[in-house]
Amino acid sequence: MSETVLQTAMDAATACADIARRTILPHFRTTLHADAKSDDSPVTIADRQAEQAMRSVLQNALPGHDILGEEDGLSGGGSEWLWVLDPIDGTRAFLTGRPTFGTLVALFHNGHPVLGLIDQPVTGERWIGVAGQPTCFLSDRLPGVIGTRSCPAAAEAELSCTAPEIMTPDHAPRFANLQKHTRRTSWGGDCYAYGLLALGQIDVIAECTMKPWDWGALVPVVEGAGGRITDWQGQPLNLQSDGTVLACGDATLLPELVRHLS
Amino acid sequence: MSETVLQTAMDAATACADIARRTILPHFRTTLHADAKSDDSPVTIADRQAEQAMRSVLQNALPGHDILGEEDGLSGGGSEWLWVLDPIDGTRAFLTGRPTFGTLVALFHNGHPVLGLIDQPVTGERWIGVAGQPTCFLSDRLPGVIGTRSCPAAAEAELSCTAPEIMTPDHAPRFANLQKHTRRTSWGGDCYAYGLLALGQIDVIAECTMKPWDWGALVPVVEGAGGRITDWQGQPLNLQSDGTVLACGDATLLPELVRHLS
Repeated sequence: MSETVLQTAMDAATACADIARRTILPHFRTTLHADAKSDDSPVTIADRQAEQAMRSVLQNALPGHDILGEEDGLSGGGSEWLWVLDPIDGTRAFLTGRPTFGTLVALFHNGHPVLGLIDQPVTGERWIGVAGQPTCFLSDRLPGVIGTRSCPAAAEAELSCTAPEIMTPDHAPRFANLQKHTRRTSWGGDCYAYGLLALGQIDVIAECTMKPWDWGALVPVVEGAGGRITDWQGQPLNLQSDGTVLACGDATLLPELVRHLS
Repeated sequence: MSETVLQTAMDAATACADIARRTILPHFRTTLHADAKSDDSPVTIADRQAEQAMRSVLQNALPGHDILGEEDGLSGGGSEWLWVLDPIDGTRAFLTGRPTFGTLVALFHNGHPVLGLIDQPVTGERWIGVAGQPTCFLSDRLPGVIGTRSCPAAAEAELSCTAPEIMTPDHAPRFANLQKHTRRTSWGGDCYAYGLLALGQIDVIAECTMKPWDWGALVPVVEGAGGRITDWQGQPLNLQSDGTVLACGDATLLPELVRHLS
């Protein structure tokens, strides 16, 4: 990206995250019924309103760019630039009142993620990654320093995954094998876990059934912090990927992790 | 409890949580190595220092009371009053940089929990429960209103559990059966999930291999918010309980949940 395009894109991504935060927060912990996934539930309303607000920001700032959102699908088509949006990554976290859900904003260029933003509306943390540049961490209250940590072997690694239920029958035994070869597993987190990996708090994350709006923003954030993020075969993620995602803070672990997942 | 005893106990519990917060927070996200469970790891140091600080508070304020802590075991013995402390409930959360771990302070009278405090040092939330009284929720930044929500049937319920790994071979199939009869499971949370149940965000929590310092503080918090908390047989928790814990926001669900867990 040229400096001008980059600055415009960064400004737009930041404006998206800002408006998503303002749109989502008033709906947090307002669920009054157990049946929280109906069309008029707080999470559904917040998701839709935040995506619409982000789309307006992008359409005004960068009218020629395509937009793909979890809620409203693809608008445009044919541009080399594609914005990929997930207003609430971590629906379960949001609707159980956990402050760990996040907003994801990614910019793809010719199919490859070149800018990624992870925003945590409740904790006020934000990660901004740009391909080829060090990731930036913005946080008023919570501490953290960008940089993945070294991990000498998978056997020492802290593994993380959002939920066992995301695993398909094909993926479950492969993930279980990885668990056997790592130190410990912690659960929950969605996109937040990738931010924590970028802060050197988690060593490995393995997930599957992930869509481009789930992983697009994570790629520049993780790689700009010194980590690697690929599919379970160790191949770079792209729009045709199979939905598996493997992230590690110490890039030298990648071949061993891929072996345990195969 | 008489008003005087109650006020002294409330003040002591609050002072414990305050000093634990101040002791723990400087160690949050300072882990620099993957091997974070050694004796000199940040989580171990924070755990020990916070328990020692809380013990000092209690020994000064209520010198005749017994104290049981996760780190240093039982001190005293024979008093009708027993304080039960867990400085960092959610070790995995703490050592992966998640803001969801908590500090637990409970006071038992003749073996029954009569006061419970859940503190979330990072988010700044605090729940205080006293047997027979409405639970109090203190929070500067995050929203929330005390009161469990109604849930017409287990099939509509949001189920929560910290990690599948806490289940023993005996408990795993029973928990899996409960999952089949509930709407959805979210993972992670430790004591935080019980606070969220008290705010009407989660309907059911089922866990096992829980020690008195894991569940003591939860009882007055959950019951003072309108929920029920028992073992998996639906019996009240006491110091001889089998380590299973079942909490529900809507007390009418309890018999059905016990059936699914049997």
